[in-house]
Amino acid sequence: VSSTAPLDEFGRIARFFAPLAGPGGLGLLDDAAIVDLPPGRLLVVTADAMVEGVHYLPDDPPDTVARKLLRVNLSDLAAMGAVPRHYLMTLALPPRLGEDWLAGFAAGLAADQAEFGIELLGGDSVATSGPAALSVTALGSVAPGAAIRRSGARSGDILLVSGTIGDAALGLRVRRGELSALATADRDFLEGRYRVPVPRLSLGTGLPGLAHAMIDVSDGLVADLGHLCAASGSGAVLDAGAVPLSPASRRALAADPSLLSTILTGGDDYELLFAASPDAVGAIAALARAVGVIVTPVGQFVAGGGVEVRGPDGRHLPLARTGYRHF
Amino acid sequence: VSSTAPLDEFGRIARFFAPLAGPGGLGLLDDAAIVDLPPGRLLVVTADAMVEGVHYLPDDPPDTVARKLLRVNLSDLAAMGAVPRHYLMTLALPPRLGEDWLAGFAAGLAADQAEFGIELLGGDSVATSGPAALSVTALGSVAPGAAIRRSGARSGDILLVSGTIGDAALGLRVRRGELSALATADRDFLEGRYRVPVPRLSLGTGLPGLAHAMIDVSDGLVADLGHLCAASGSGAVLDAGAVPLSPASRRALAADPSLLSTILTGGDDYELLFAASPDAVGAIAALARAVGVIVTPVGQFVAGGGVEVRGPDGRHLPLARTGYRHF
Repeated sequence: VSSTAPLDEFGRIARFFAPLAGPGGLGLLDDAAIVDLPPGRLLVVTADAMVEGVHYLPDDPPDTVARKLLRVNLSDLAAMGAVPRHYLMTLALPPRLGEDWLAGFAAGLAADQAEFGIELLGGDSVATSGPAALSVTALGSVAPGAAIRRSGARSGDILLVSGTIGDAALGLRVRRGELSALATADRDFLEGRYRVPVPRLSLGTGLPGLAHAMIDVSDGLVADLGHLCAASGSGAVLDAGAVPLSPASRRALAADPSLLSTILTGGDDYELLFAASPDAVGAIAALARAVGVIVTPVGQFVAGGGVEVRGPDGRHLPLARTGYRHF
Repeated sequence: VSSTAPLDEFGRIARFFAPLAGPGGLGLLDDAAIVDLPPGRLLVVTADAMVEGVHYLPDDPPDTVARKLLRVNLSDLAAMGAVPRHYLMTLALPPRLGEDWLAGFAAGLAADQAEFGIELLGGDSVATSGPAALSVTALGSVAPGAAIRRSGARSGDILLVSGTIGDAALGLRVRRGELSALATADRDFLEGRYRVPVPRLSLGTGLPGLAHAMIDVSDGLVADLGHLCAASGSGAVLDAGAVPLSPASRRALAADPSLLSTILTGGDDYELLFAASPDAVGAIAALARAVGVIVTPVGQFVAGGGVEVRGPDGRHLPLARTGYRHF
């Protein structure tokens, strides 16, 4: 076998993935991985999948695909207030994605492992005749009683959100060749926010004891607020004029005010949306400053159910759709 | 919306998957699941994927697809001596697989959850334009120091295998319309072994302290024995005449002796292949009787490296290929 022959599964694992394995991963050479959780902590675990052409585009750089795959899972752990530790990954890959693609993909994993202090435990790599289908299971931990559920919001709580909202939805439009009137720097910023979200781990892991309920914004701000309300048996009023926008989004919105609906209902922001008592807002602001993440009050929880969106004029703002549906 | 409209993702989760969730799964209504591991146990975790048309056939009954997906993962836990507890699942599904298919798939999961005492913790369901790509991450536990690795086989150890070997590879041939001279009952038996393997959990969880090294036979008997040898830095001699065959396989082999190679190198048996000291063979036989699983000595570990297969005449048996490669 010449050294330029394609690697089989074992060769691929040895070259690209074994270097990413932590001690529990046993070099990816065993049937399963073994993890000794920190004593007195609960395991928190989540799994998310991405499909080529649905969650990313076929010509996206493979390192950004890998980072998004990890980060959407890390964002789910952040939304529980959990600290990430490990992940497993299964890849169904079409034959056209060769070793160059895998090398880029593995480099993206390595970069994010270093950034977030996580390690690969194991997984599986199989062939498909269709688009790539990628799956990660992320493992982390919380102290007993500290996990922040979706169900704890109460009438009178303040609704807060991290970062800026709508960048990813606008970035997807840029990626599709729309919003061409925007400056190149703005287009690049928005597209980057779509391609590589930032899981708000430093904020999320500081919120146990301060937030009553939390979710990450993946389906869209209005839809995910609806999930918080449904789980909590509460209603919420969202003040659209208070929703934090990046400078690039503000410029896009100024040029085309109809983009407000995209901003409020588009998905993929991976910001944290949470409920807190008015008494806790000062401590949350201090935490936000300490971790360098903007946190903005955008509404409040009320009795009843469902989400009411109010425009900058204080009146009800009708929206054509409320968020991404996967089917 | 009429009651016959297709369910969206949330409706599908509520109808088909939420009833499968254990307490840690939080009704599949949160961003992640929370698990309190049994005190003093280590977490053991594995992930395997299956692709429609590669690991099962598009017209396989959906309940058998679900059970195979779970069982290939449970088999990995069995091969470590671990007790399964939970799983997460991601499904990339083409739109043609509708609610009837999902209902059958969920029924298969429910049956195996009851059989193996496991619960769903969470996951993700996404759309794909290609064949279905399914992934499970299975979680279990072992006592500290009890996990059985691939790397502990020593020269002089006996090589043992559970159940019968080759049924699944012959069953795949049946599934493809080959082996048509076999009796219907034999064909059905072999095809069933391919479609729904039996993870040897009762045996595997009894082997800590008795087995030095273990693997489950997924790539094929010879290939997986090669993995055991490579991890252990040992060689092995496999006595092909001792390999346990089912009555159906024996009849198939009698009709076509060339099937021996398929039996020895075909994949998907999900039997346990393990190394043990000659001193432990009596205790292993007692365990095998107690759990109702046949265990057969099929060779021994020797100094050096690699696998030598000897035919019934004691001479070296050449094989055209050693096992399934995924790429």
